[in-house]
Amino acid sequence: MRAAGFDNGSVSRQPDSQDLVCGIVAGDVTADVVYRDEEVVAFLDHRPLFKGHVLVCPVTHVDTFTDLPADLVPRLFAVVQRVAVAVVDALGAQGSFTAINTVVSQSVPHLHVHVVPRTKGDGLRGFFWPRTRYAPGEQSAYAARLRAALSAPPVPRDG
Amino acid sequence: MRAAGFDNGSVSRQPDSQDLVCGIVAGDVTADVVYRDEEVVAFLDHRPLFKGHVLVCPVTHVDTFTDLPADLVPRLFAVVQRVAVAVVDALGAQGSFTAINTVVSQSVPHLHVHVVPRTKGDGLRGFFWPRTRYAPGEQSAYAARLRAALSAPPVPRDG
Repeated sequence: MRAAGFDNGSVSRQPDSQDLVCGIVAGDVTADVVYRDEEVVAFLDHRPLFKGHVLVCPVTHVDTFTDLPADLVPRLFAVVQRVAVAVVDALGAQGSFTAINTVVSQSVPHLHVHVVPRTKGDGLRGFFWPRTRYAPGEQSAYAARLRAALSAPPVPRDG
Repeated sequence: MRAAGFDNGSVSRQPDSQDLVCGIVAGDVTADVVYRDEEVVAFLDHRPLFKGHVLVCPVTHVDTFTDLPADLVPRLFAVVQRVAVAVVDALGAQGSFTAINTVVSQSVPHLHVHVVPRTKGDGLRGFFWPRTRYAPGEQSAYAARLRAALSAPPVPRDG
């Protein structure tokens, strides 16, 4: 029986023997499960960024965030939001950090949303630094490319 | 007219003159908007972690992720997912990093979801390190506290 380890910097997509989430769902991998319903499971990351660090995942196998079926988006993120409330209410955190690594830095090929308790001065403030700068005109060019990609009507995939 | 700056490490919750998102929605603050519908707006962070870094926000004022009304959860995260697809399709990224700072490190008091293009070897792999360790028995105690907080039935807040 293995313990779960997540997001150590490698790149992987294939659902395979390294999919610890399906292992946890099947009961083959031990984990401290904190929430479970038919569609969503949440458990402690055993090597937390801060203690109480939770991973929220679809029960069914989904490789990455961009592969998540439309009908599971609201179900998964409703639980993510509840966990973000719980780390404050139950653990006394002042806030939280919610994050998803998609493909790059995603070492476990099963979508998992990190919810990490935060406290002011906990040392994570450097997380979003250093920032970079756009060259003159470059920002609008990036915006145009994204705007074009997003201007197509949303594709209703299911529910 | 101000330019938008986000998440520099301070703690703030009050919707006030520093709410650059409402400023962008109102047209008082310039931004490169890449997506807009009645409920969601997405624009470039002008000081990106990597170029093409997008912020996805509810149009209506919402302080933090945990304040997001239940009916907006699916709408917001459907757009977040589309943006995560777009940074790959339109910008040639290999993956993405999606993140929300709630209260701590949230410098702009209006919910904004970061979607950052990622490429292997871009230097962000240290993001989730270093990790810490639980003392013996400590992990199960944390799990019990979260499980209790999450065992109450979900509160249907609206839609």
